[in-house]
Amino acid sequence: MCRWLAYSGSPLLLDTILYKPAHSLIDQSLHSRMGVETTNGDGFGIGWYTEDTDTPAILREIGPAWNNRNLREIADHVTSPLFFAHIRASTGTAVQQTNCHPFRHGRWMWMHNGAIADFHLMRRDLTLLVDPQLFSSIEGTTDSEVMFYLALTFGLDEDPPGAVARMAGAVERCGREHGVESPLQMTVAVTEGRRVWAFRYSSQGASRSLFYSSRVDALRRLHPDMRFLQEVSEETRLIVSEPLGDLPGAWNEVPESSYGVVQPGADEMRPFTPQPV
Amino acid sequence: MCRWLAYSGSPLLLDTILYKPAHSLIDQSLHSRMGVETTNGDGFGIGWYTEDTDTPAILREIGPAWNNRNLREIADHVTSPLFFAHIRASTGTAVQQTNCHPFRHGRWMWMHNGAIADFHLMRRDLTLLVDPQLFSSIEGTTDSEVMFYLALTFGLDEDPPGAVARMAGAVERCGREHGVESPLQMTVAVTEGRRVWAFRYSSQGASRSLFYSSRVDALRRLHPDMRFLQEVSEETRLIVSEPLGDLPGAWNEVPESSYGVVQPGADEMRPFTPQPV
Amino acid sequence: MCRWLAYSGSPLLLDTILYKPAHSLIDQSLHSRMGVETTNGDGFGIGWYTEDTDTPAILREIGPAWNNRNLREIADHVTSPLFFAHIRASTGTAVQQTNCHPFRHGRWMWMHNGAIADFHLMRRDLTLLVDPQLFSSIEGTTDSEVMFYLALTFGLDEDPPGAVARMAGAVERCGREHGVESPLQMTVAVTEGRRVWAFRYSSQGASRSLFYSSRVDALRRLHPDMRFLQEVSEETRLIVSEPLGDLPGAWNEVPESSYGVVQPGADEMRPFTPQPV
Amino acid sequence: MCRWLAYSGSPLLLDTILYKPAHSLIDQSLHSRMGVETTNGDGFGIGWYTEDTDTPAILREIGPAWNNRNLREIADHVTSPLFFAHIRASTGTAVQQTNCHPFRHGRWMWMHNGAIADFHLMRRDLTLLVDPQLFSSIEGTTDSEVMFYLALTFGLDEDPPGAVARMAGAVERCGREHGVESPLQMTVAVTEGRRVWAFRYSSQGASRSLFYSSRVDALRRLHPDMRFLQEVSEETRLIVSEPLGDLPGAWNEVPESSYGVVQPGADEMRPFTPQPV
Repeated sequence: MCRWLAYSGSPLLLDTILYKPAHSLIDQSLHSRMGVETTNGDGFGIGWYTEDTDTPAILREIGPAWNNRNLREIADHVTSPLFFAHIRASTGTAVQQTNCHPFRHGRWMWMHNGAIADFHLMRRDLTLLVDPQLFSSIEGTTDSEVMFYLALTFGLDEDPPGAVARMAGAVERCGREHGVESPLQMTVAVTEGRRVWAFRYSSQGASRSLFYSSRVDALRRLHPDMRFLQEVSEETRLIVSEPLGDLPGAWNEVPESSYGVVQPGADEMRPFTPQPV
Repeated sequence: MCRWLAYSGSPLLLDTILYKPAHSLIDQSLHSRMGVETTNGDGFGIGWYTEDTDTPAILREIGPAWNNRNLREIADHVTSPLFFAHIRASTGTAVQQTNCHPFRHGRWMWMHNGAIADFHLMRRDLTLLVDPQLFSSIEGTTDSEVMFYLALTFGLDEDPPGAVARMAGAVERCGREHGVESPLQMTVAVTEGRRVWAFRYSSQGASRSLFYSSRVDALRRLHPDMRFLQEVSEETRLIVSEPLGDLPGAWNEVPESSYGVVQPGADEMRPFTPQPV
Repeated sequence: MCRWLAYSGSPLLLDTILYKPAHSLIDQSLHSRMGVETTNGDGFGIGWYTEDTDTPAILREIGPAWNNRNLREIADHVTSPLFFAHIRASTGTAVQQTNCHPFRHGRWMWMHNGAIADFHLMRRDLTLLVDPQLFSSIEGTTDSEVMFYLALTFGLDEDPPGAVARMAGAVERCGREHGVESPLQMTVAVTEGRRVWAFRYSSQGASRSLFYSSRVDALRRLHPDMRFLQEVSEETRLIVSEPLGDLPGAWNEVPESSYGVVQPGADEMRPFTPQPV
Repeated sequence: MCRWLAYSGSPLLLDTILYKPAHSLIDQSLHSRMGVETTNGDGFGIGWYTEDTDTPAILREIGPAWNNRNLREIADHVTSPLFFAHIRASTGTAVQQTNCHPFRHGRWMWMHNGAIADFHLMRRDLTLLVDPQLFSSIEGTTDSEVMFYLALTFGLDEDPPGAVARMAGAVERCGREHGVESPLQMTVAVTEGRRVWAFRYSSQGASRSLFYSSRVDALRRLHPDMRFLQEVSEETRLIVSEPLGDLPGAWNEVPESSYGVVQPGADEMRPFTPQPV
């Protein structure tokens, strides 16, 4: 499995989130506490939006995040209002750039923690459900990328929560057809550069951990001495596989079978149910 | 496109063939004379059979062959009676280990120079022709690997030339269906560890170059002073994308639309025609 | 040897210079016309200054530039007023990140094309001339990095042209002591983020090629239809190992044994002579 | 720090030792129990002697061992009577091939676990002690490689234990000169292809763990049902940073400040004391 984080808010030097926190994602690459694996060293990726371009920049490498100098450089010099970061623990699929998250299609970015159980049994059938126009854009061999292309097929552009629900429905139906009891396990983040949707779901109702940061105004009242909180806007929000530290009041668990939307204006949290396709 | 060589004969230190010749494959990685590209620096692979194991060992890396130290080490220390080597010039697909040749399935090895024209148009349809049992073993995104899996689907185990002919027939039919005029361009080598089949074919009848070495006994008569020729058995044979040097009488072109078989006993050269599937 | 370019001027998307020109540095990585080697595929690096940070960001990788996706991403999304790019053709030293240019020390960046002849004979003596305080910062094994640390030792911070002249003097003296006839061959670019110094020198008076772009106002008069020239400031300047295209009037050779300074206000071109140390 | 193993004995498929044991070195790369770090993912190396060549083959890569396919291939296909394997946890020096163990010089191989404390303070002085003829052969930036070159300088060819003792003496003297209290921490293995010397020493008398396997004849009596033990010769011996499993009676700790020699005939264990140089 993997660990990831999504940041949205005041433009920030990536380092502030990626390296600085006590239990940062880089620390999690060596010492994850809540993940299935302690070590997430099978590649990593970051994707960030800039002011000048529509599509996000994506840097992916196949070595571990903890010793990567290019990641360190980017984190020290790049500022962004919306970025994803992902560290990978492969469950057998090849360690290659095209299997690293985030995945991109047009202005969309997607990343995933979890797995489709017995994916090798379903890979062909699920791949066939992908829009034939999109088929040749699949570059890797992960379940995560196929999930992304299914969501794109099922209307990600118009209705992100619905598209992800239909993707989940398709995976569960395909799983049943192959006799797989609990086919889907996922926390997923997806964005078009303005809003971020984050999903927590699993067929067996025991999903991988997922947390979101508290409202900045509430945190300021709790921790008036933390300068960092004064500098970011009230809209600033983090979604993470596991908390980046132990700040009391800072982290809230995303409920089982739910999704959240980080967006201009009030954020939302809603129930998530796979939909038949 | 790419360059490759296949060696079969007396057990030999890989260095003798890979680095020593004046225009060795390593030299071709920087200075190919007959290839579509001068530089073949988008990954490489070698596969060799040993006395003790049924399957070949395969080493593949994503950097250029010319500066790779691990390849140099293997070449300096490994001896084998049958090995393949391949240097890659990507035409756009990702530079990753799983796109490097040779590909392996069980005891079989496969490598390819050429391309399926407009492969992105046909990738889905061709992939669907692969035996569903084999589908999940596809790890990369090249036309070459899909060609291998089609050949496996169409009976490579029982009838290698027939299976390759049916693969070629399937590609040409699929090409016609998509309005691609000359879908297939290939030189292919395939082996199960005992015999080597080498194919030269293209839909337009203008195939990439392919050469085989002359009989060792004939070469000995021509070049009585070359010690190397005294040391290898009469069964020894090389098949190469382009000659490794300028030794008069050493190299013969494989005719258009033909395939050769290197095997214990007399080798063979036969016409090759795609077969409908 | 290698190829490089240095850009200083209006903040620009790196892609405009790195990929867009007909004979861009990326094209030169496969098809250099004026370099000692046609192929420069043994690693690459880019370094760029941002508005927010003092030190430049440096991205270096060991594969070829032409197929590197992270470089493509950075070029498509990063804007900078001053950046260096370098593609490497190793003459035997290891292909590793710490041997890729540009090198950085504090706010300084350095890159080099050329070689110290018989560097293995002089490596120990030259390394001993490096300030002991700086010694442990040397991370790679190239002559180029030792040249940088010698320049830092000899006063790069206070007097860049003098420091480089003393470095060159030290190399030539050391060469004479070891019986090396023409010890130094170099084109070097160095910057602290505001000015760029570019040197062309060789002991035998036959230096590697080096060009600088013409004044933007003159180019505008020559090519009133080129939109790109309207968009960049008059201070904009490029220094390159070989011209990026065939635009008449665009490129001027840096004279033998000279150095140029690109700086706010009038640029300069001056003679360069190694100085004894 | 790192983990390593040295094998000497009956020619064996590398897999038998590298992957098969419950707590194999590959398992230790993710889950070391006795190392300073749990994860040893900053590169790895294997070196093996063959029947046909004097020098060992060395394969080194910068990614983790646990997901490396080339290592898996070599382990599955290469048989050797004497091999080293090493997994690295960098303490800050660059992750690059030339910093991976084992190091080789001529027929010698060297690998190390531990560190020279405050190596950056001593790097220059220690490097200057290396024979000037050998200086330019240093390719990386590790303390381990400098230790190897010091041992070569101090007579490794004629008197391995004496050369290592003089290296240790030089490091401790240099440490004292720089005010470093406990300069040396090491377990080292070194071989010329016939004998293996393994050292355990640290300035503070609290050295990293090191174990050697029991005599094969004793193990056979203890475990008459283990087929593996019937197949290897009585001369077979393993030296490891930590035991590969929990077989009772199989593993013995190398005492503090000692070294062992694995050789044709009776093996030896002797005290180790640094010698002044």
